[in-house]
Amino acid sequence: MAATVGVAGSAMTRFGRQPDRGVAGSAMTRFGRQPDRGVADLAIDAARAAMADAGIAAEDVDALYLGTFLGRSLQGQGVLASVVAQRLGLGPVATTVVEGACASGGIALRHGMLACRAGAADVVLCVGVDRMTNASSGEITQGLAEAFEAGVDRELGLTFPGFFGLVASAHTARFGTSRDQLSAVSVKNRDHGSGNPDALFSTPVELAAVNEARPIADPLRLLDCSAIADGAAAAVVVRDRAAAPRPDRCVSLLACEQGSGPAAAAAVEDLCSFGATTVAMRAACRAAQIKPADVDVVELHDCFTIAEIIDSEDLAILPHGEAAAAIEAGATRLGGEAATVNPSGGLLSRGHPVGATGLAQVHELVAQLRGEARNQVPGTRVALAHNLGGSGATASVTVLAA
Amino acid sequence: MAATVGVAGSAMTRFGRQPDRGVAGSAMTRFGRQPDRGVADLAIDAARAAMADAGIAAEDVDALYLGTFLGRSLQGQGVLASVVAQRLGLGPVATTVVEGACASGGIALRHGMLACRAGAADVVLCVGVDRMTNASSGEITQGLAEAFEAGVDRELGLTFPGFFGLVASAHTARFGTSRDQLSAVSVKNRDHGSGNPDALFSTPVELAAVNEARPIADPLRLLDCSAIADGAAAAVVVRDRAAAPRPDRCVSLLACEQGSGPAAAAAVEDLCSFGATTVAMRAACRAAQIKPADVDVVELHDCFTIAEIIDSEDLAILPHGEAAAAIEAGATRLGGEAATVNPSGGLLSRGHPVGATGLAQVHELVAQLRGEARNQVPGTRVALAHNLGGSGATASVTVLAA
Repeated sequence: MAATVGVAGSAMTRFGRQPDRGVAGSAMTRFGRQPDRGVADLAIDAARAAMADAGIAAEDVDALYLGTFLGRSLQGQGVLASVVAQRLGLGPVATTVVEGACASGGIALRHGMLACRAGAADVVLCVGVDRMTNASSGEITQGLAEAFEAGVDRELGLTFPGFFGLVASAHTARFGTSRDQLSAVSVKNRDHGSGNPDALFSTPVELAAVNEARPIADPLRLLDCSAIADGAAAAVVVRDRAAAPRPDRCVSLLACEQGSGPAAAAAVEDLCSFGATTVAMRAACRAAQIKPADVDVVELHDCFTIAEIIDSEDLAILPHGEAAAAIEAGATRLGGEAATVNPSGGLLSRGHPVGATGLAQVHELVAQLRGEARNQVPGTRVALAHNLGGSGATASVTVLAA
Repeated sequence: MAATVGVAGSAMTRFGRQPDRGVAGSAMTRFGRQPDRGVADLAIDAARAAMADAGIAAEDVDALYLGTFLGRSLQGQGVLASVVAQRLGLGPVATTVVEGACASGGIALRHGMLACRAGAADVVLCVGVDRMTNASSGEITQGLAEAFEAGVDRELGLTFPGFFGLVASAHTARFGTSRDQLSAVSVKNRDHGSGNPDALFSTPVELAAVNEARPIADPLRLLDCSAIADGAAAAVVVRDRAAAPRPDRCVSLLACEQGSGPAAAAAVEDLCSFGATTVAMRAACRAAQIKPADVDVVELHDCFTIAEIIDSEDLAILPHGEAAAAIEAGATRLGGEAATVNPSGGLLSRGHPVGATGLAQVHELVAQLRGEARNQVPGTRVALAHNLGGSGATASVTVLAA
């Protein structure tokens, strides 16, 4: 595996040999209720910390990408990338807001990578942010439902918990996925997230508590669902890893790929798989010159317990149709037989300020690749982040390496 | 000039010689009131027409960028790039919504170019869209004001007509810009736009009518202001112009650059110039290896008459402090001494469905470079589009060549 990664590390492109791109630094704010921080404040907090981690000054930054999903609907702030760049003192650099529902953070990272690969930037600041807890639950539900195509299911009252309830029912019908297996995801991730100071929920939960939690959208219960939060995360992407101020602390950015799919539940052909994920994963493996089995640690999009089961299969981290049982048996726990999944605690522990999630995943993986993670996976060489938007309308898969 | 462009046409990058990128096709919907077309419908109408113009089939498209500013605030539609890609039958390609207020369309084009330059795509569909006329004037004013930074001027009631009124007052105070000079911009552009079947306003206006129009935000009057509309525009960007299905109809995309600046009027240092424009213009000239004097035809962001005066100076199409007099003297009219500015009629004629404007500009320039424009500028070799967002929070400058 090390040899494979070595090759990928200075990959040939169709335009010739390029330098090894990297993530030079990363950071996240605490995820939770932060009533005193506006959406721009949160973004700036994460951005400053990521720049400090990278050893990058404001004048070194060539471009800023900012991913947010609810910055408009809940905060009424357009051109947020420019607002943040101005307040950071970046000067008149290229600033772009990108949106792909809950995958907005992963998409921001992808565009940092593309700008470097295109030769348009040497250093790109990528930020993901959302502020949610100042809104009413009705506003939040409606804001999130904007990730569904208008005029189709959402006018019938479908919400995201409702959609993932349908997904869980379909998975149970096809594969016999049990209540205990769904709950096992929550138990594992809350266990991994125990003591995580950045997480909304930093205490473990018992299987019985998940099984008996308040029903939300059958068969999903409260502890099957990630929670809204305020928060931001950021990463500094560099065109040339060797030229980073702290090259030893800079990890390789081997690939960051995107796929897309239907934004209406009625149009999803197979409720047990997200095509956007499988397409992005295939492209990421090709670009990074890795196989799924090469991956040591994964942060994936467990917005609901059932999503982790399906994501694990779509990413080929666990065999198709066998993920629920494997997770229940502990395969993806820290120290398990397969790649460790969501050592940070995932969305289920961390909370899900939607636009921030993709870059919070990257922040955990940077720590893993530096060997400095709270729940360190020993000998981590290859790490993968997976960020899903809406009903599989979009997804990103990022491959990082030591 | 031709020799300069010839060199730029196969520019060296820091990674070696790249193929000549191009815009293979373009299109726009009629701009105006289109109550029967939703925001996705409009985007699809323009996208299909641009693909047909390029001779590109759905299965040839590798990625879609969609620029919109009000798709969330007025239409409540997230992941619009995925919605449009699905309905166009593009398959699971990378889909991204980009936002930079009224420059969202130009930013979409830039990311089509970057994806090609990064080797991530051979063919990218770039779409700009906004639907506005189904909202109340209060909703529209509030939606547009989201391009101001929250917590600064907008809570004091500043609107965009108000901001550009301040800009016009400052320009008048510094340069003596007269009422007739402001009006001359409107007269020229409405004259250029006369008979434009895609434009909201396709009739000329007299100087006296502009001078005496209803006051909006002193000194600006009704005919100083571009009007809201529903509409979309699209362009197909290709990595290798020579490989386009219709290479003879494919124009060269020499550069598409971005700059940024303050999103609060209080933070704008000089109300008579937009730093985002000057930065983007310098970068675009460098990337395209042209000088401002090489430009034959310009579509620039005349959201208000005063904006055209300032843009002409920021882009160095006319000398600093002399644009108002030069425009009044007819320098930028069709057949004038300088580059022709806004032969389409500009935003003042066409209407301004904000996210669509940047790509509608490109659509006019593609026609000019093909020698097929309604108001053809004879012998056009180099064409420039300028798209401005908010109070100069962001801007893009695109250079195309025959």
